Amino acid sequence: MRLQREAPDPLYMQLKEALMAEIRDGLYESHQRLPSERELAEQYGVSGMTVRQALLALVREGVIYTRVGKGTFVAEPKIDQQLRTLTGFSQDVRARGGRPVSRVLGAHVVNADPEVAAALRVAPHSEVIRLARLRLADELPLAIEVTHLPFLRFPDLLTHDFAVESLYGVLEQEYGVALTVAEQAIEAAVAEPYECDMLNLAPPAAVMRMQRLTIDSAGTPVEYVVSTYRGDRYKYRFTLQTGGK
Amino acid sequence: MRLQREAPDPLYMQLKEALMAEIRDGLYESHQRLPSERELAEQYGVSGMTVRQALLALVREGVIYTRVGKGTFVAEPKIDQQLRTLTGFSQDVRARGGRPVSRVLGAHVVNADPEVAAALRVAPHSEVIRLARLRLADELPLAIEVTHLPFLRFPDLLTHDFAVESLYGVLEQEYGVALTVAEQAIEAAVAEPYECDMLNLAPPAAVMRMQRLTIDSAGTPVEYVVSTYRGDRYKYRFTLQTGGK
Repeated sequence: MRLQREAPDPLYMQLKEALMAEIRDGLYESHQRLPSERELAEQYGVSGMTVRQALLALVREGVIYTRVGKGTFVAEPKIDQQLRTLTGFSQDVRARGGRPVSRVLGAHVVNADPEVAAALRVAPHSEVIRLARLRLADELPLAIEVTHLPFLRFPDLLTHDFAVESLYGVLEQEYGVALTVAEQAIEAAVAEPYECDMLNLAPPAAVMRMQRLTIDSAGTPVEYVVSTYRGDRYKYRFTLQTGGK
Repeated sequence: MRLQREAPDPLYMQLKEALMAEIRDGLYESHQRLPSERELAEQYGVSGMTVRQALLALVREGVIYTRVGKGTFVAEPKIDQQLRTLTGFSQDVRARGGRPVSRVLGAHVVNADPEVAAALRVAPHSEVIRLARLRLADELPLAIEVTHLPFLRFPDLLTHDFAVESLYGVLEQEYGVALTVAEQAIEAAVAEPYECDMLNLAPPAAVMRMQRLTIDSAGTPVEYVVSTYRGDRYKYRFTLQTGGK
């Protein structure tokens, strides 16, 4: 792999891409140590500064991580999520062989703000359940999810302990809700300082912000979720088709 | 709209959400000036610091912008893009009533790196066209797109001027290519310094990184695109369905 000094991309970005390709091709395994900065500089014929910039970019994207005094190590691959099927966080983590854990940050009945009321199609200021959770897979914090549900429909919902129970499981088994479709939006953002704290990110860090409105088989909105996912751990996939031309 | 001092979200995030709701509800129009920091602090009963933090968060998310000595103004709404139909940048911008412009950053025949060769299903190191473009709508830079195509199939492609022509238009009209489906991946990342320069972003800024493999009606890969979209200007929407349960 040769770097091209006359290419439009900076040299350190080319080195970053080259290292990413080597990691993707299995030249290094997860948690394996990368060669030292000096070794990489020699191997690619670039300066130590270029190597440091490339490694920093890889750290920012979650491809590698550093351990002080130990060097640079290959991170586990990003979670590869299809944007097609309506599933919940617990279900996704279990499907990948992980153990979903939640830390309940808040579980209250509050008055709906205009955004939530409009999404759930309830009267402004009417009572909604607001369930804020930090979502973890095994020990790793991955997302902050704030879910709103109409209180009148699910008056006993907060008697459940959502540190251990799945919300979608409870809705289905306890209330007979058949979640059918979700309208979702996704944006990239720089994590706020308190989000970095909760998600264990070193600022500046990127997150995905999502809004999800989930609808049941009768066409009624069931929940409106605002969530923040770690940018360094998630990659989303989807398929585009040409329209009727 | 009252802020809740005992809520899990910091006060400034609640104020940010409240201001976003007011902008969304049309209380302020695009390019209208917001009340001053002091006025907002009085109106919401919070400190000037809380107001400043909320405004900074709104700037970071592209909801408002500041003009030195003039105050804070409401930005145009984010571009709302459906992740469903396979379209190109030019087509998307025209559909929104804008004028697509490209600045060609590089247009060369290069040897495919392993990632590109694998995606396009060509031999490693074989010749591919590498077309790097800065994509603008009217005067606004929105994305950096680096497209790779097999050189053998499109040997005369670079005789076109992609500052003014649409790549998808040329592929269709000149080569009779029927683009049919694209497999796409999306990630959130912190923009690299040179990306901030090109996209006119103040660091730290968030971007969406995309990889797209576009397939023709014969099932052959036509192009592999790596692109970087401004996080403060794009919001993507899609629909999720429950699986066959």
